[in-house]
Amino acid sequence: MDVVKQINIIKISGDIKEEFADLIVVEKPINIFVNYEFYAALMCSPSELTALAAGFLFSEEAITSMDDIRSIEEKYGDRVCVVLNHEIQKGCDSIRAISSGCGSGSIRLNSVENGKFKSIDAKEKFSAQLILELMKDFNNKSEIFKETGGVHSCALCSNKGIVAFSEDIGRHNALDKVIGKALMNGLEFKDKFIMTSGRISSDIIMKTYKAGIPMIVSHSAPTDLALNIAGEANMTIIGFARGNRMNIYSSGQRIY
Amino acid sequence: MDVVKQINIIKISGDIKEEFADLIVVEKPINIFVNYEFYAALMCSPSELTALAAGFLFSEEAITSMDDIRSIEEKYGDRVCVVLNHEIQKGCDSIRAISSGCGSGSIRLNSVENGKFKSIDAKEKFSAQLILELMKDFNNKSEIFKETGGVHSCALCSNKGIVAFSEDIGRHNALDKVIGKALMNGLEFKDKFIMTSGRISSDIIMKTYKAGIPMIVSHSAPTDLALNIAGEANMTIIGFARGNRMNIYSSGQRIY
Repeated sequence: MDVVKQINIIKISGDIKEEFADLIVVEKPINIFVNYEFYAALMCSPSELTALAAGFLFSEEAITSMDDIRSIEEKYGDRVCVVLNHEIQKGCDSIRAISSGCGSGSIRLNSVENGKFKSIDAKEKFSAQLILELMKDFNNKSEIFKETGGVHSCALCSNKGIVAFSEDIGRHNALDKVIGKALMNGLEFKDKFIMTSGRISSDIIMKTYKAGIPMIVSHSAPTDLALNIAGEANMTIIGFARGNRMNIYSSGQRIY
Repeated sequence: MDVVKQINIIKISGDIKEEFADLIVVEKPINIFVNYEFYAALMCSPSELTALAAGFLFSEEAITSMDDIRSIEEKYGDRVCVVLNHEIQKGCDSIRAISSGCGSGSIRLNSVENGKFKSIDAKEKFSAQLILELMKDFNNKSEIFKETGGVHSCALCSNKGIVAFSEDIGRHNALDKVIGKALMNGLEFKDKFIMTSGRISSDIIMKTYKAGIPMIVSHSAPTDLALNIAGEANMTIIGFARGNRMNIYSSGQRIY
């Protein structure tokens, strides 16, 4: 499925008004079915849909690894059908907040409010210079953003470079796709970090925490609630990583 | 409640590493109760909460005007209690997609998929020059963004200028706050337009459509699904309104 589309627009620049062929991003509802029943619908960029579904179900704690999945298949261009090796709990097990996040924007409130986060024990260190170099690579890789300005990017990075990269209209979906691809490729999370173009709100840090990823680097700002969670979980938050600058908000021991 | 908070961070700039007192945005779950029962939880910036709840319930079609509200009250710093003059439907009346939007990020899928949008009959015209001047005022008004880089802004504008303005960590919440304030002040929607710092996805255009606002101007990009809805509903979408430029994506007859 195409993730961008060409349309005719009118461009105004000062006194000049002219027709112009422009690219915009495609937004599509994708239905996720689990064990032959409807599970969730996501508004997303229609690419890497099995990775999106795998990452989303992992963040939802419906699966703990790819071993839980018997089959996963994209069908009819509008759905991903997942069959698990176990039954899943149905109904409301907790109150979900409609979140500030872009894509997959809901969060189980009790998990934030109960505030019981285990410290992520990950010793890997990263140099500030490497992070800033990877941020440049990351910006260069964002092809759909460069074409349309309408998507967020996300990457999983190690000390060796970017190991998974995705773009999506939702910053959450981009994160789910990256986590999904890492799961499907059997990658470790503990020695890596997330890089994102989007803001770090509580729901973004929760997805990162659930994967056991100890660090997240953003082009943009974190919220105080994300910092509270990161503080408890011994996670490193870096914001405003741009040019030769960055802000370290928590657990700076991982940066040298 | 404070919407920003001061914290100590480590700032890296080239070879210089120093401690710095910085401001970050506060993110808080707010519970909305309708007719003494829990209705929804929103992750938001804790300001203008009655306007947020009124705008959210209006977008949800739980109310059609302020006349439907018997009382609305912010309580205990974490909730808004709304009593309506009518009962509301409970349970799932439609499938909700977890949307790409920031804040209030869910969308009733059937409303998008059935694709029956009435044309908004609004004759008001706006000059390109006015729109670009208002975008400058809009950027200047974004105080929390200037302090933290962590929020979206939204405004309701007329040919006379900005009539309502809000900031929130979620671009949807900012829109709900603006719509809520307009409802509470008895303002007309038909002769006005929305200005937003965020992308125009289907859920943002749906909220604008439901209010009967014929035009939306963004600093950023629209999606194809938002354009499809705008096309059917005769709504004007303007994107990338920056400096002396803008892109008109649909219903350009309102711009001179």
